[in-house]
Amino acid sequence: VTRPIITLTTDFGSGSHYVAAMKGAILAINPEATIVDISHEIWPQDVRSGAWMLATTAREFSPGTIHVGVVDPGVGTDRAIVIAEIAGQRLVAPDNGLLGLVAAAGDVQSVYRVAEPKYWRDEVSATFHGRDIMAPVAAHLSLGVAAKDFGPRHGELLRLNSCIPSICDDGIEGEIVFVDTFGNLITNIDKEAMSIIPDGAKVKIACEKAKRIELVETYGNRAADTPVALIGSSGYLEVAVVEGDASQVLDGGVGCKVTVRW
Amino acid sequence: VTRPIITLTTDFGSGSHYVAAMKGAILAINPEATIVDISHEIWPQDVRSGAWMLATTAREFSPGTIHVGVVDPGVGTDRAIVIAEIAGQRLVAPDNGLLGLVAAAGDVQSVYRVAEPKYWRDEVSATFHGRDIMAPVAAHLSLGVAAKDFGPRHGELLRLNSCIPSICDDGIEGEIVFVDTFGNLITNIDKEAMSIIPDGAKVKIACEKAKRIELVETYGNRAADTPVALIGSSGYLEVAVVEGDASQVLDGGVGCKVTVRW
Amino acid sequence: VTRPIITLTTDFGSGSHYVAAMKGAILAINPEATIVDISHEIWPQDVRSGAWMLATTAREFSPGTIHVGVVDPGVGTDRAIVIAEIAGQRLVAPDNGLLGLVAAAGDVQSVYRVAEPKYWRDEVSATFHGRDIMAPVAAHLSLGVAAKDFGPRHGELLRLNSCIPSICDDGIEGEIVFVDTFGNLITNIDKEAMSIIPDGAKVKIACEKAKRIELVETYGNRAADTPVALIGSSGYLEVAVVEGDASQVLDGGVGCKVTVRW
Repeated sequence: VTRPIITLTTDFGSGSHYVAAMKGAILAINPEATIVDISHEIWPQDVRSGAWMLATTAREFSPGTIHVGVVDPGVGTDRAIVIAEIAGQRLVAPDNGLLGLVAAAGDVQSVYRVAEPKYWRDEVSATFHGRDIMAPVAAHLSLGVAAKDFGPRHGELLRLNSCIPSICDDGIEGEIVFVDTFGNLITNIDKEAMSIIPDGAKVKIACEKAKRIELVETYGNRAADTPVALIGSSGYLEVAVVEGDASQVLDGGVGCKVTVRW
Repeated sequence: VTRPIITLTTDFGSGSHYVAAMKGAILAINPEATIVDISHEIWPQDVRSGAWMLATTAREFSPGTIHVGVVDPGVGTDRAIVIAEIAGQRLVAPDNGLLGLVAAAGDVQSVYRVAEPKYWRDEVSATFHGRDIMAPVAAHLSLGVAAKDFGPRHGELLRLNSCIPSICDDGIEGEIVFVDTFGNLITNIDKEAMSIIPDGAKVKIACEKAKRIELVETYGNRAADTPVALIGSSGYLEVAVVEGDASQVLDGGVGCKVTVRW
Repeated sequence: VTRPIITLTTDFGSGSHYVAAMKGAILAINPEATIVDISHEIWPQDVRSGAWMLATTAREFSPGTIHVGVVDPGVGTDRAIVIAEIAGQRLVAPDNGLLGLVAAAGDVQSVYRVAEPKYWRDEVSATFHGRDIMAPVAAHLSLGVAAKDFGPRHGELLRLNSCIPSICDDGIEGEIVFVDTFGNLITNIDKEAMSIIPDGAKVKIACEKAKRIELVETYGNRAADTPVALIGSSGYLEVAVVEGDASQVLDGGVGCKVTVRW
């Protein structure tokens, strides 16, 4: 690849020197890399939000893209750092659940444990493996080093149950994972989970203050101020208020429960 | 062009997956593109602020640059998406007023309606034409596809009257469109509008708490804490407080009226 | 260099048109440049924070990198704009202390005053030398113009005493310069300053509400909720609370004093 793409998803904050340090580390090894920020606004140490962000966004990039995810509350403990080959892309991240949703959604081709120090920064700090291990590993991957050269095979990727909506006899239970600038409440309930609803069933969705939200096809279908639910552009169920701000009207935010009944 | 430039101006918020999805869509089609974020902090669905941001910033880029603007409250309705060739650059945006100020300031060479689906994402969502139509169209433009190949000629671009300062017998009336990190209040009253003031006239500017602000050449001209008005670096009238924060001292923000009298 | 790197560190805010204007100015001169945002979240006109950000981050980039710093309360006065060659990199900034910490840490090879208008924007505004002088100068540097071609030799770079921790008989006195998204309080006391502490001395650190913080090697060493101090990943002393948010628990922020005694 002439211009390999490396994306970054972290909880460091956009204006932080940590993000810049990772970019410096990547470009020092491969100045031809195109670095794309996915988000640095993941709630600090919130692996679940990070996992959702990667699951919803990684697929928007072409095969061959390298994604680096750093939401790493266990830095300095013995949690593994891995390279996962999923659906033709490679992801570099701690194996703490951050890759669990990408792995659940796509074909996991192989997982390697990052163990070979010759691809790391000369001096590895105790607290910043994003700069010292993950960024250099991604840069070497982008130069053509094979994933298997970074370390031995690794077992199955950790999946956090709390990330995944639970399906029970009488419905689906999930939660809000992202609130966008328009106040739309995006849940972790994906198209696939919703596909278990029988055709023609009358669906009611509950989210905080609104107990009987209707499922619609597009925002345009209902009068202003009506709470509605729809499958959004990323393939996840979202709750919105027509011409309004659902996060304010319904008082909903990240972590709030959302239930689907029929 | 070996490294075509594509800029993005949206109301999605910097840490949002929507911005990343647009970048993924562009780079999947043209991995050689240089993507530049102009701003993702446009007030949600505020077409006027977006129009000002594009008008003030597009001109800072070289001819050949492609600008994508997505402030799109009408997504899903039948508002057109257009490609406008203005002053040697191309802009891709909904025709909802977002291009109105660029069009007012520069030479509009041609406008085409985006209508040819072969340049779009395979699956077009109801709510995210930024990713599904505008980003792919911009990427194909950057690869050399001509604007006329995307669809038929389009009529005049929509201009929102509220974007443009009104000139009356006894002065100019405009409003604040941006507050910078220093607290300076930037208005939509441009150099050209100010040029109607007769030479030598004594000018007084009113903005919220300050009713008789003097027009100066540079900040350095007055004592600390004095409110002053000047033509700023982008060519628009701005209100500042010498060594102070005008947004706090004058209690001014986006949307506040500003009047110029002489 | 085929893909020269130009970094930007400013107090303009991420969503501001000022940042975009600087990028437009750079890419108009050198479309092959890779522009990296270090931070645009420097506290407005806070030269000390900007100096620390540059000192801690510039070194993360490879030799040959060009750094542009714009925290410039003296714009429009006769403060010089300089090009400093330090440790194999070049930095373009006002000589107002912004380069003082980089200069203190690295080998200053030469400093030139930016004086040759042919490398500037045709029209130079009174208030935005970032776009009109510094960005074009950096772009021309990236094309291979030598630093000496931009103007005459310049004297020693300004160093703000307030940036540098003071070392007294009974300890070291510094201050907090950055609070990260985890609430860690990062100080301007670097590894070198700490090296004056005699081996084996019992060290106590005071920071706001906590008067006797222990110095540890890593976060993992102490129980949850314990305030600790350690040399962080950037080589500066930082105060943290194990599994907690030090900025909240200790009520500390940028500018708070930190003292080290033994």
